[in-house]
Amino acid sequence: MNKLEDYVVTIKDFPKPGIMFRDITGILDSAAGFKFCIDQLVDALCDVDFDLVIALDSRGFVFGAPVAYLLCKPLALIRKSGKLPRETIGEKYDLEYGTGEMQIHRDSVKPGQRVVVIDDLLATGGTAMAAVQLVERLGGQIAKLAFVIELAGFGAREQVFKDYEVVSLLKYPGK
Amino acid sequence: MNKLEDYVVTIKDFPKPGIMFRDITGILDSAAGFKFCIDQLVDALCDVDFDLVIALDSRGFVFGAPVAYLLCKPLALIRKSGKLPRETIGEKYDLEYGTGEMQIHRDSVKPGQRVVVIDDLLATGGTAMAAVQLVERLGGQIAKLAFVIELAGFGAREQVFKDYEVVSLLKYPGK
Repeated sequence: MNKLEDYVVTIKDFPKPGIMFRDITGILDSAAGFKFCIDQLVDALCDVDFDLVIALDSRGFVFGAPVAYLLCKPLALIRKSGKLPRETIGEKYDLEYGTGEMQIHRDSVKPGQRVVVIDDLLATGGTAMAAVQLVERLGGQIAKLAFVIELAGFGAREQVFKDYEVVSLLKYPGK
Repeated sequence: MNKLEDYVVTIKDFPKPGIMFRDITGILDSAAGFKFCIDQLVDALCDVDFDLVIALDSRGFVFGAPVAYLLCKPLALIRKSGKLPRETIGEKYDLEYGTGEMQIHRDSVKPGQRVVVIDDLLATGGTAMAAVQLVERLGGQIAKLAFVIELAGFGAREQVFKDYEVVSLLKYPGK
């Protein structure tokens, strides 16, 4: 039996020099690897009381959609600006140069709903924190944040998300 | 029991005047709607002999990922340019003004593999045909193209894909 890390491909200097890119497409390349990964996410959420999965644009869709299906929850998408057709609210986050904006449909979260946020990778936590703020502005509560990979060297779990429940399947110590 | 079309929201004049946008996020908003949709895709592919699911950036990920999981197939992503970290090949497709490019990892398809391509919506068929060409350049064979929604007024099924197997869950007569 392989471990999940056996499926992750590390690519040096992508998308720019100095970055060790952890490529989740290696997990998808194997039917067993993908099944193993999704099943571990489901296991991590089995005992969580929640109403809605939110997946982040766009690799988060790959993991959030099967989890929503398997746990019989609705699925909402948080997307980069201009992609969602109905009325949205937006939250800016820092990019290396300038800012980006994540958006959600205003009717995606009902007040009081408990939400699980799913993305492929936790690094600085910038986009995930924008997602948390969008959910809370709509009156939702964050039940848990779930990631396939966590780059622990950024310290997002201890700093950005110290008041939230975070689970990741695979931790790398560096950035 | 609702029908799939009960979950699709039609938005006038998005992303620009004159377009009737068929919004698949309405399907996701309902756990039952999403499950029904994925199960219908699985039913449509149950008897297809194939090796690999390919999902198209990025709403295709929402449907392709659960199908790959449920049918125990590997999942490859076809993405807009610059998003995939390993060595890619690309194929241009027409946009209203200028061209876009879809890319796939060179090692995603092995020669002789039979591939199911999944996306949310079939309109002109431009991006899906770029996907077909990428698969065939890598030596793969298209087993089937599967869409949640088909805008039949574009005639893509009869024209662009006349030599391929196409299935869609929901057809709208117009463009």
